[in-house]
Amino acid sequence: MTKVAVVGSGFIGRAWAISFARAGLDVALFDRDGAALDRARDYVAEILPTLEDYDLLNGARPSDVLGRIVSEPRLRDALDGARHIQENTPEDLDIKRAVFSELEEAAPRDAVIASSTSSLLPSRFTEHLKTRERCLVVHPINPPYLVPAAEIVPAPWTAEEAMAATAGLMEEVGQKPIVMRREIDGFVMNRMQGALLEEAFRLVADGYASPEDIDVGIRDGLALRWSFMGPFETIDLNAPGGVRDYVERYQGIYERITPTQARRVDWAGPVLERVEADRRTALPDTALEGRQKWRDKRLMALIAHKRAAAKTIGE
Amino acid sequence: MTKVAVVGSGFIGRAWAISFARAGLDVALFDRDGAALDRARDYVAEILPTLEDYDLLNGARPSDVLGRIVSEPRLRDALDGARHIQENTPEDLDIKRAVFSELEEAAPRDAVIASSTSSLLPSRFTEHLKTRERCLVVHPINPPYLVPAAEIVPAPWTAEEAMAATAGLMEEVGQKPIVMRREIDGFVMNRMQGALLEEAFRLVADGYASPEDIDVGIRDGLALRWSFMGPFETIDLNAPGGVRDYVERYQGIYERITPTQARRVDWAGPVLERVEADRRTALPDTALEGRQKWRDKRLMALIAHKRAAAKTIGE
Repeated sequence: MTKVAVVGSGFIGRAWAISFARAGLDVALFDRDGAALDRARDYVAEILPTLEDYDLLNGARPSDVLGRIVSEPRLRDALDGARHIQENTPEDLDIKRAVFSELEEAAPRDAVIASSTSSLLPSRFTEHLKTRERCLVVHPINPPYLVPAAEIVPAPWTAEEAMAATAGLMEEVGQKPIVMRREIDGFVMNRMQGALLEEAFRLVADGYASPEDIDVGIRDGLALRWSFMGPFETIDLNAPGGVRDYVERYQGIYERITPTQARRVDWAGPVLERVEADRRTALPDTALEGRQKWRDKRLMALIAHKRAAAKTIGE
Repeated sequence: MTKVAVVGSGFIGRAWAISFARAGLDVALFDRDGAALDRARDYVAEILPTLEDYDLLNGARPSDVLGRIVSEPRLRDALDGARHIQENTPEDLDIKRAVFSELEEAAPRDAVIASSTSSLLPSRFTEHLKTRERCLVVHPINPPYLVPAAEIVPAPWTAEEAMAATAGLMEEVGQKPIVMRREIDGFVMNRMQGALLEEAFRLVADGYASPEDIDVGIRDGLALRWSFMGPFETIDLNAPGGVRDYVERYQGIYERITPTQARRVDWAGPVLERVEADRRTALPDTALEGRQKWRDKRLMALIAHKRAAAKTIGE
């Protein structure tokens, strides 16, 4: 039986535990804080029946999935026999460096050691290690049991075999791996999100459109096709002769726009007053938590829809 | 009965005709080329039953919708009694200027005259008109009968009443209007799409990820939430204290990235070889047309899913 170790039982760690256990793997969930482990277990137990309702447990029963997750307050026990270690400690460089030293010491020789970090380059917290070639980043969009994409990011010294083994594991558990060729700040997804957000804040700051207008343009416009094709396939199908034809016809429009997108607007400046006022009118403070539950349900329903559509219409 | 006139019967004009007629409006579809009018009518007749299959005709029968679209080879007849005129002629400034002169001459005094242009600012082809205050742009993502978002863009002299009447009409027919405060190249949606595409091409050109990796990051990652919330609501729900909390926690990540996103990569340069090779391996030339049909079906299924989810889970 394949065993993976999840280090740190916060929101990202517990979400990874669900993703791995749902796929039939044995999961050791480690945290030094026993109370945190208990909270994580309660959280997982509570969400599994909802996932079953949306047919997102791949036919397994909630009790089976929960049964595959073992809480481990001792690091050595958690790592013993693990093929893959997924680290989820605070986003602090000193902490990550110390944790990775501990992990390489206690992990089986052939295990891959992966960090869930979204903001630290893998080279920065693995450079000092003796077995740094087996270290890398696997960055999910939380929660990975709902959002399939996960970025696999190498340091300059990460071995090709570690990358391939991790991509294989991700596919095995139903994630969609993005296999980066080298590290860069923001990886792929935060860079794409950042580019979009910069333009969104700029358009609001300069008085062209409201935050709600931007959201309409994405949720009732561009993101419809993006949500099942991505931007490259979208443009490939948007000109009779494919992507080359698209670039020849339309690059001129974007070339004209780009110079006006270089100036950065401080998101925390006056524009934030406008964005916050609009958002708090649409959704008061007190409604944020309920709306997050709504979001998670809509996300589950969307994932279920995508699976059904892939079957009936094709992927 | 409200009447609208659609000027030009190409792919955008005929799509607008469906959108208006589906909502119960009388549509005069004008084209000087009688053969083009016949082709447009055949196209509409063919697609309506498919829209009915996905419950996208709002309960109307295909024959009712088709019956509300009248082909008009004479401009005066088409415009007679119309409340709104939607122009869809070629994206050429001289043509648009001449067409708009004709339209203002023949249109009822109180009708709004809108262009579907995606690349020309309204000020450039309405400046010379006597009644320019009633002219504006309504730019759809094609086809508007599937994609709700439509940008309403004023020239500096466009009257507030014309903007409001157009927004009202768009809501009446089930579109989601983006009401811009002033014109800018690319409007909202092409500016957002351009920002995302620039980063996508740059990441591929610089060897960080493949086109397919980018598509995975969007279609199995970011665009899932964007497709029912948009980017501002997404970040508003991604920090416990809402959008202000998000900006305070995470702007630092994006500030670091931005300077590395300023350099523009020529999409038609060496990167295009890579993108085209990958796309043509995934989808040969000969399969493009079939894949466009697949895309349209997936889009219809997604719209149907969003309506159902809005009812059962909430909007």
